[in-house]
Formats: sequence, structure tokens, C-alpha cells
Amino acid sequence: MASFLVKVLITYRKGILDPQGVAVEKAAHQLGFTSVKNVRVGKYVTMEIEAESREEVEREIKEMAKKFLVNPVIEEYTYEIEELEE
Amino acid sequence: MASFLVKVLITYRKGILDPQGVAVEKAAHQLGFTSVKNVRVGKYVTMEIEAESREEVEREIKEMAKKFLVNPVIEEYTYEIEELEE
Repeated sequence: MASFLVKVLITYRKGILDPQGVAVEKAAHQLGFTSVKNVRVGKYVTMEIEAESREEVEREIKEMAKKFLVNPVIEEYTYEIEELEE
Repeated sequence: MASFLVKVLITYRKGILDPQGVAVEKAAHQLGFTSVKNVRVGKYVTMEIEAESREEVEREIKEMAKKFLVNPVIEEYTYEIEELEE
């Protein structure tokens, strides 16, 4: 068994309204950062997974994404897997 | 003027309780993903900034982080800057 660090980035799909992004952009403009645009706020989920192989980790991530981590109607995701030293 | 894509990752500092991470981990375990641990949920903010140089973008990010984007007591952040093709 090995230990893997998984980093998942979850963002709203293009065209989906992102209220948190709108709020951050408004705050930026009000505070004088007027050259900022297209602010989007997504989620950054990190976790450790014990598994036999990188392929097993990949399977688990995809299943978790499908079951509860990502809402495919409005969100998309990417991930990175890194093997941890014991 | 050039256009830059900025990606900011904001995470809770080590030792700070992350209730969303705890909730995701609990959900994972209940759904059978028992080898998952240390789940942390952070924010992934992307934005475009118009600026003369990468250094100017860097200054803006640091100022925004200080002024409203990051709470330094409980959060830390990293960022990446990418110049966009016109």
C-alpha cells in the first residue's frame, strides 16, 4: 500500500453564473483594483488516499467526483496525483 | 498593456479546523471510500488582470490578498500567473 496526495480543482462550467466570483470582482473594483475581470471562485479539495497504485487512486477520484464531489451539470474538475514518501 | 490569467489557491493553515473538509471526509467514508483521509477544502480563485508587466500583476495579487481575498490568521495562499495571448 502506498499513500497518495490528491489535489482536485472544481470550477463552474463556462456560462454558469458564479455568484461568489461576481462578489469578489465587485469588491476588487470598489477597492480600486479596476483592471480585474472574469473572477471565478471554485473549490480546491486536497486529500490523502491509501491505495495499491496510481490507477486505483484515479478510479477512486472519478467515482467520488461522480457520487458526491462534483455536480456535473454546473461544475467541471481536474486533478493531480502525487505519491507521498513513506 | 497585456492580459494575464491569475490562479490563486487559498487553503486553511495547518491546524485550523476545516469544517467543509470534515464534511467531505465523512461523506466519503459513508459512501465506502474508507481509504480517504485528511480532506481539506480550499478556494480556487481565477481572474484576468490587465497590466504592464508580470511584476505589476504580482503586486496587485499581493495587495488584494492582504485587503480582502485572504484571511492571514486562518488562511494561506499561493498563486500562478500566465500571460494570455492577445
